[in-house]
Amino acid sequence: MAKSYNICLDVGGTKVLGAIFDEKEKIIYRLKKKSKEGGDSSQNVEDVIISVVDELITAAKIKKKDINAIAAGIPGVVDSDSGIVLFTPNLPWENYDMKTPMEKKFGVPFYVGNDVNLGVLGEFKYGVAKGYKNVVGFFPGTGMGGGLILDGKLFTGNQFKAAEYGHMILDPEGPLCNCGQRGCLEAFSSKTGMSGYIRQQIKRGRQTAMKDDVANGVFKSKALKKALEADDPVATEAVDRACHYLAVATGNMINTISPDIVVYGGGIIEAIGDIFLQKVLSEVDRYCMPSIRKTVEIKNATLGDDSNIYGALAMIPQDK
Amino acid sequence: MAKSYNICLDVGGTKVLGAIFDEKEKIIYRLKKKSKEGGDSSQNVEDVIISVVDELITAAKIKKKDINAIAAGIPGVVDSDSGIVLFTPNLPWENYDMKTPMEKKFGVPFYVGNDVNLGVLGEFKYGVAKGYKNVVGFFPGTGMGGGLILDGKLFTGNQFKAAEYGHMILDPEGPLCNCGQRGCLEAFSSKTGMSGYIRQQIKRGRQTAMKDDVANGVFKSKALKKALEADDPVATEAVDRACHYLAVATGNMINTISPDIVVYGGGIIEAIGDIFLQKVLSEVDRYCMPSIRKTVEIKNATLGDDSNIYGALAMIPQDK
Repeated sequence: MAKSYNICLDVGGTKVLGAIFDEKEKIIYRLKKKSKEGGDSSQNVEDVIISVVDELITAAKIKKKDINAIAAGIPGVVDSDSGIVLFTPNLPWENYDMKTPMEKKFGVPFYVGNDVNLGVLGEFKYGVAKGYKNVVGFFPGTGMGGGLILDGKLFTGNQFKAAEYGHMILDPEGPLCNCGQRGCLEAFSSKTGMSGYIRQQIKRGRQTAMKDDVANGVFKSKALKKALEADDPVATEAVDRACHYLAVATGNMINTISPDIVVYGGGIIEAIGDIFLQKVLSEVDRYCMPSIRKTVEIKNATLGDDSNIYGALAMIPQDK
Repeated sequence: MAKSYNICLDVGGTKVLGAIFDEKEKIIYRLKKKSKEGGDSSQNVEDVIISVVDELITAAKIKKKDINAIAAGIPGVVDSDSGIVLFTPNLPWENYDMKTPMEKKFGVPFYVGNDVNLGVLGEFKYGVAKGYKNVVGFFPGTGMGGGLILDGKLFTGNQFKAAEYGHMILDPEGPLCNCGQRGCLEAFSSKTGMSGYIRQQIKRGRQTAMKDDVANGVFKSKALKKALEADDPVATEAVDRACHYLAVATGNMINTISPDIVVYGGGIIEAIGDIFLQKVLSEVDRYCMPSIRKTVEIKNATLGDDSNIYGALAMIPQDK
């Protein structure tokens, strides 16, 4: 059968995850490759993307002519209509046409979108938010990504910049965020925010098993999980604080959108989602209007690391 | 010409404003009637609505058979599909079918929606937000109403409860709001929030010309205007604080939606809109992401007291 396969990519700051889907939308092969950390040219990451696609085709033993389309999620602001990456904080792309060279190279349509937007879209089409109409997604990771499905469609706002409620200010006098504002949700509830809190406590002379994990940047989710399991007090406080502010932000978004479902996803949720969800649920009723709270579900993503990959698949028009 | 006229109503807690539009969407007659304050039966307000419609028809010298439709904005949660008023905090209606008796009485289609939603819809179709696609409206009054136009349509979310960002929490330890939460935008930036602040300062022994205006509830917008013009320090502080938090909330909504335009409307804006807008504009850049700020305009409503009336008109299908 010709044109049966779609290749979907999740391009991160330091790695490229790829998967081939068959005509039944099942992953038949997957691959992860590291890209140079903080690479200084777009070519470098593109080379990794191209090699991931090539290797997927070889390993899955399919033919190039059987590929229908390629789609990728990118950590940045992406004009999905034109395929131009407008801006990436952690990759070297600015106003970069990703579509044209990729379509030239592989001879198939290429689609690109914001990774967290696609993560929420993936959960909406294939995961926990399937069948709902209005979805608010929070994806805590190094930053705090957001994604909105409104009236059954991915909502991107003016110039594809919507859903930056990771930078919703919850305390105008709060800690400084990477974005330059104070007291954003991201400054409390992302790995960056939690790592900053843990470093502060270390400076105050407190003991924590996470000292090495935060010494040169943000911890890995697995390290946080281990510390929580060992009842590390500083790690527990950092998570309590993160969940408190995530509950406030969730309440604010419930009041704003009146969604059918709020979904938490991404690396931290994959690692300690149960703990996060329980803590948020224990507080969130205080922060939204009871009548609106009644009709919204609050759940963790179910596609794990594959949310973005599935979202990329959802971008590919079905009639092609 | 038959079926040329539409009658539009703005039903408030204490008054009903009505207008007749001709086929060119111009107001040919208008009328305002007081309803019993805190009326204890829905019949009472309905009687006022009916008498407003009857008087409009008589005064404008048109015939009942020339009326195309009637539409009304209501301060509450309204199921616009079925015409059922689900809940009103300041009127006696709960799960109240407003459509059926009104259509029976007047023999024409009757439409009903949330008043602030309609205010924003009015500004979108006929006012300052005409021609834009994504609009965020803040209507400070006794409370803090909100309205969202997304992708060119009024967005109402699950069960018509969206756009309650008047209850967005901006300081979890802030002043108590009527809704039971602390630190909502409404608790700072509505007439209720400002009146509370002024009362607090009076208790602390400070002098203000607004003492009588806040003694038994919320001030009237005109009284606030007068106090500001006289450089009343307590009134000025109340407005500064209101505008500070409105700027934070505006930044949060800009980050969340990436709208084309933010619109401020309602009674306070009608009275002191220039002062409000200047103060908010002087701060808002601090509270949203620069790249998103670049593509959004921030303006005051231009339809004044008629925003809701025009929004009601916008609800009436054009092909009828």
